[in-house]
Amino acid sequence: MEAKLKLKTPDEAEVVYYEAFLHCDSEVMAALWAAGDVICVHPGSGAIVGHAKVLRSWQHIFNDAQRPVLTFSVVKRTLHETLAVHLVAEAFETGDSSPTIVLATNVYQKFDQGWLMIEHHGSLVQTGAQGQTLQ
Amino acid sequence: MEAKLKLKTPDEAEVVYYEAFLHCDSEVMAALWAAGDVICVHPGSGAIVGHAKVLRSWQHIFNDAQRPVLTFSVVKRTLHETLAVHLVAEAFETGDSSPTIVLATNVYQKFDQGWLMIEHHGSLVQTGAQGQTLQ
Repeated sequence: MEAKLKLKTPDEAEVVYYEAFLHCDSEVMAALWAAGDVICVHPGSGAIVGHAKVLRSWQHIFNDAQRPVLTFSVVKRTLHETLAVHLVAEAFETGDSSPTIVLATNVYQKFDQGWLMIEHHGSLVQTGAQGQTLQ
Repeated sequence: MEAKLKLKTPDEAEVVYYEAFLHCDSEVMAALWAAGDVICVHPGSGAIVGHAKVLRSWQHIFNDAQRPVLTFSVVKRTLHETLAVHLVAEAFETGDSSPTIVLATNVYQKFDQGWLMIEHHGSLVQTGAQGQTLQ
């Protein structure tokens, strides 16, 4: 694993998360996730618990897929001292006229070294429901 | 709206949430959700933002459906002073041998009156991925 990240805000952590996703960078992804019983729910998946299993799931995604083309926008930030919850809309370009939208709840925790990710929960917005995203 | 709830812990709030869901009780649901830009993502839905819109979505669910038969179990609790994030597995009885599993990230905030819900993000676990729920 590379040198530890030192991220000063949840927003910095979020940028690192999406950069790692975009570049299929498993080293940065591994450094971004906290140790211990962190949780990742990919769209449609069950709960993947623990740093090693979460990182293995990302490695599978990085191995199987082309680099995604996505943009993200934060719908809502909640920050209380050492815990932050962001609801994020992820728009994946698919080649069609309308992107695929995934909503993600990203949870970050402040450690001595800085902010790290402790949960990612993604869900696919079904076609026909996307209008609600901007409600 | 009924008299304000006074919930001393995130777990108490969670019990009230699932009781309101089970009993299709829109008054209790309205009292459980904080005011302001709270967020609800039903499985497959977009982000529904704001107390009134969130409650309207619950009213639609309560109007359209039979009372659900569900049990819930908390996969992970994260509690930092005034903010709590729970990942919960919801098992809906369907009449088939295996229940439908929804994973929910429930976020609670401590206010002067007690703990209230500020986010619910649910996603359906696709068939074939349910084994991951207990990882």
